[in-house]
Amino acid sequence: MNPSASRTPPLPPHPAPATVGMSLDEVDTPALLLDLDAFERNLARLPASLRGVSVRVRPHAKSHKCPDIALRQIEHGAIGVCCQKVSEAEAMVRGGVKDVLVSNQVIGATKIARLVALAKEAKMGVCVDDLGNVADLSQAAQRAGAKLDVYVEVNVGANRCGADPGAPVVALARAIATGPGLTFAGLHAYHGAAQHKRTPAERKQGIDDAVAKVKQTLALLEQAGLPARIVTGAGTGTYPLEASSNVYHEIQPGSYIFMDADYGRNLGADGQPVHEFEHSLFLLATVMSHTNPQRAAVDVGLKAHSVDSGLPLVHGLPGATYVRAADEHGVLALTEPATVTLGQKIRLIPGHCDPTVNLYDWMVCYRGHHVEALWPITGRGRFY
Amino acid sequence: MNPSASRTPPLPPHPAPATVGMSLDEVDTPALLLDLDAFERNLARLPASLRGVSVRVRPHAKSHKCPDIALRQIEHGAIGVCCQKVSEAEAMVRGGVKDVLVSNQVIGATKIARLVALAKEAKMGVCVDDLGNVADLSQAAQRAGAKLDVYVEVNVGANRCGADPGAPVVALARAIATGPGLTFAGLHAYHGAAQHKRTPAERKQGIDDAVAKVKQTLALLEQAGLPARIVTGAGTGTYPLEASSNVYHEIQPGSYIFMDADYGRNLGADGQPVHEFEHSLFLLATVMSHTNPQRAAVDVGLKAHSVDSGLPLVHGLPGATYVRAADEHGVLALTEPATVTLGQKIRLIPGHCDPTVNLYDWMVCYRGHHVEALWPITGRGRFY
Repeated sequence: MNPSASRTPPLPPHPAPATVGMSLDEVDTPALLLDLDAFERNLARLPASLRGVSVRVRPHAKSHKCPDIALRQIEHGAIGVCCQKVSEAEAMVRGGVKDVLVSNQVIGATKIARLVALAKEAKMGVCVDDLGNVADLSQAAQRAGAKLDVYVEVNVGANRCGADPGAPVVALARAIATGPGLTFAGLHAYHGAAQHKRTPAERKQGIDDAVAKVKQTLALLEQAGLPARIVTGAGTGTYPLEASSNVYHEIQPGSYIFMDADYGRNLGADGQPVHEFEHSLFLLATVMSHTNPQRAAVDVGLKAHSVDSGLPLVHGLPGATYVRAADEHGVLALTEPATVTLGQKIRLIPGHCDPTVNLYDWMVCYRGHHVEALWPITGRGRFY
Repeated sequence: MNPSASRTPPLPPHPAPATVGMSLDEVDTPALLLDLDAFERNLARLPASLRGVSVRVRPHAKSHKCPDIALRQIEHGAIGVCCQKVSEAEAMVRGGVKDVLVSNQVIGATKIARLVALAKEAKMGVCVDDLGNVADLSQAAQRAGAKLDVYVEVNVGANRCGADPGAPVVALARAIATGPGLTFAGLHAYHGAAQHKRTPAERKQGIDDAVAKVKQTLALLEQAGLPARIVTGAGTGTYPLEASSNVYHEIQPGSYIFMDADYGRNLGADGQPVHEFEHSLFLLATVMSHTNPQRAAVDVGLKAHSVDSGLPLVHGLPGATYVRAADEHGVLALTEPATVTLGQKIRLIPGHCDPTVNLYDWMVCYRGHHVEALWPITGRGRFY
């Protein structure tokens, strides 16, 4: 036997940190909490904010990775969801979603085979920025007898993925339009870098630039006889701009259902934080050490929260600040009037919702002070 | 039926990103790779570096969360492992580890009940810094008919958890010694903040301070007739200092098996990076977009890597730098002589190993260019 073979027997799944009906004080920590009242208001506010605007909503499931949330977004008018990975899309389709756009490049035979298999079960879209990838997708779709909607990703300013606007997009569109098994669906024009610009003027500048690049490209596509049916893009930070641009047909906000501390720092026209959506996502922490009146340690650290966009905010405890994160500890600085006791449960607002949700297997949904539901985050860890 | 009840059917587990025997080029990405040759050299180097020093090694399993690694550490002389959470300890005990110190406070009835249940299967230690917690542990241990080794955590400079050195420690030791079901085992004196100080002089200053605080406290404990059998602490950055202090009996290095980019920035006496241990842990990424010669996007982003201690380093591709992370993307800046092709697999050295490992369910172990084993990271997500 291979001496490096695994000797680990299977381990039963770790039970969820809560049961339905439990009081919040009984929930084991760290736990990912969803305030259902705030979540449901956010769900309804998105379509309300788009009244009178002709745009379809395809929320991004990368923020929640949770089919229960996707189904509720669809009940509020969404036409389907976006995913960032094929495996994430598998979780959504198995969870009942029938229309998924993988708003990303799918590279490599393994992933492409899974994508076309999924396209036999649901309407699947995918993005491209490379001619060889178009050929690979076409061959796989043809072999599987599947159809894929293919969007050309246009680099509208994020300088990450995407073909440059103009001629390179036309070449890709032509390859898609002539590729068996593929349908040229349109353009993916997402400006990620604009979402978190702090002032409305900066966000508008970013989206104005993106819209100009898309318009120029659409004109070239028309000339080439390759009209783009759908232009899709936008996130929580900028979607009203894309929605009213007369250029975008679909928008992809994700974080609006949760909000996070970082999005909470975006400012509106009045110079105050935008309050369109509420914080509905929290981390429940326990005070696990308190040996000094100016300091306490909680059990939410780097393994229970992503700090890429800053430390979490302490909710509902004025004078308490989360000042330092270690692997499994967070240090709270306490000033007047904050006092805590050992074992006390404290709610934190995560700095960045998407990578934080990805750390958890369960969304503990509560209303008032009691757990009302447990939603499995079946997309958790589905990044390959 | 509760309208917010979950409607998600069970989803089969996501298959591992590799199979044994596969070439590295076939591994699906992102994947967590372990270079077995480098890992095995690191495993052997730790005891070799301690030759002639009388100290026991109890490596910290929070770095790997993987019983297969714990068992190999024990084969190289370790007496057991440390864990940071009871649930992590459950994964280790189910995986065959018989002696675990939870080097942390365990607060709340749920967690304490699980701790004492585990103490019926393995030798279990735990840390305290609060008298009420000592009473809770004693009551639970007594009720379960279990025995717990209890260590007083001393704040030796990290200013996170722990009782202040001196009299507060004696009071806790007395409560433990008289608490049914509990044994006063000694002191937990871990100076986390000293591990990543860049110069040897700073690290030595930190541990000299810690040793002085421990010595003062040990003298008071002797006077009180409460001798500490064991002083435990230390990490990869400082363990030679604690090991040669004549005060510490056990050391707890964790990262030495993997190393990471952050530990790679610690300097030795010659002003050069310390090279005692090798990088054995890598992230395998795929180039998923390359539309500009100066730039490429890889599929390792914030959900596949923790950036709390900086961005990952690109391994074996001079001229390529990981400059920006998004949720599922990393942007590489390419300068001479770096060139990449779409679909190319690239190895990255993670900035911080512990929270990065916690994102993965599988350790893909390779030797040379082929996958030799798959080790389940059964402690993944076991933070509550």
